[in-house]
Order: sequence, then structure tokens, then C-alpha cells
Amino acid sequence: MEDDVFCMIINGEIPCTKVYEDEDVLAILDISQTTRGHTLVMPKAHYSDMLHCPVELMHRVYDVAQKIGQAQMRAFGAEGVNILSNVGEAAGQSVKHFHVHVIPRYAHETGGFQITMKSNNTKGWDLLRIATSIKEEF
Amino acid sequence: MEDDVFCMIINGEIPCTKVYEDEDVLAILDISQTTRGHTLVMPKAHYSDMLHCPVELMHRVYDVAQKIGQAQMRAFGAEGVNILSNVGEAAGQSVKHFHVHVIPRYAHETGGFQITMKSNNTKGWDLLRIATSIKEEF
Repeated sequence: MEDDVFCMIINGEIPCTKVYEDEDVLAILDISQTTRGHTLVMPKAHYSDMLHCPVELMHRVYDVAQKIGQAQMRAFGAEGVNILSNVGEAAGQSVKHFHVHVIPRYAHETGGFQITMKSNNTKGWDLLRIATSIKEEF
Repeated sequence: MEDDVFCMIINGEIPCTKVYEDEDVLAILDISQTTRGHTLVMPKAHYSDMLHCPVELMHRVYDVAQKIGQAQMRAFGAEGVNILSNVGEAAGQSVKHFHVHVIPRYAHETGGFQITMKSNNTKGWDLLRIATSIKEEF
């Protein structure tokens, strides 16, 4: 894909800091390290995002993400890890090539990665209506 | 597991708003809806987090997460989705039973879910050292 910086990295047109590579999957350090060890895992084949990736290949990507997370815990004494994939600009996806962030977390450092979750106070019948809407499209 | 609210939900001891269920996997609405449709996907068997889940079962969980995300896009006209699993308190994990958040995002609503990513300005040889540390533990 033109203008896809990850395809250019995979094709060797742009340098990267490789963490892992096999026939189907590449893992590189995020050039913007939000915390020490922040890694991106992606399929070499181009799919725009996680929702558009064939399941077998998605499994390979998450297999590597899991091993990277385990390795980060051992390598840096991380106390937690976030495994995150963003789909669409509205969700913060900047490069339109499926990738999974594996972000080690350290209890005594704030770091550059933060998640804020605040309830919108949906309750009762509204929850049932929402669940029904998802079920109908599943 | 005692004191694991998701095991209690899976065992029917606590009510939930079910979105999907099969032999191995359960998907429910997050009781704290950060955005309309916020869903949790989990294995029925108890594993503390994503890094400790057997790969085959992890695949089943992400298969359902992918389908839930696709259904949320259709059901609510969501413009994005975040697929997130937190490992450890330092990463924001509150219930110690592996689960994946599938969070629909809407461009014209801020919503209660936000991610902040800020570079820590790691550069050059430091990136290589970090990558080598992960590779050695992979």
C-alpha cells in the first residue's frame, strides 16, 4: 500500500528497530516510546486494521504480542502490560496497517501512556437494548 | 476462583448483560459503559490475564472480540473501536480474570474512554539496547 509507513518498513524502505520477525509477523519498537520497551506487532501482509485481518493471521499476531509481553516483564521488570489495537481514527489509529501495541507498565513511573475510563452511567433497560443491538449484528 | 467477580458471573452467582456465549467464551456489557456498547470478552476458564492464557483459548477470545467489534460498527454506526487487554494493576487491570475490552468509538462524542500517548524521547542506541533486551527474553 502506498503511504503506509509500516508496509515501507516491512519492505525495507524505511529503517526500524526490529524486535522479532518471522514469515508472517514483524515486531518493532514504537519510534515514539511511551514507556521503555513499547513494541508494535503487525502482520507483514497489509490489512487496514484488526477488524479486517483474517483470523488465522490475527492469531499469529497475538501469539507474538503475548510472547513480547512476557519478554518485557522479564527484561525490564515491568509490573504490567497493555495490549492494545486501535481501529479507525476515532479510536486513535494513525497508521492504517493492523498493529498491536504491547506497552510495558511500571508502577513507580507515570510514563507517557495513560488510559482514562469513566462510566457514562448507562443503566437497566438501556443495557439490555444495547446488548440486543450487538447480538442482532453478531 | 474466590473473589473473582467474573468467575462469579460465569457461574451465574452475579447477574450480567450477556452479549455472546459459547462453551469457552463469554461476552458481557461492561457495567461501566465508557462508551455505548463497551463490551468485555473473557474465557470461562480462569486465567489471571492475557499473558497467562493458553494460546488456543486466547485465539477464541480474540475471535469473539473481532466479531463483537464488527457488530458494534454495524449496530451503532461506530467510527472506531479499541481492543484492549490490561495485564496487572500497573496497567489498570481491576479484575484478575483475563478479559478484552472492545470499546466502540464515536467521532462526535468524547465519551468516557481516552488514551494518551506521549513519547519519552528515547533515541538511537537506547532503542537498540531496549530491542536487544526484549529479544534476549523472547
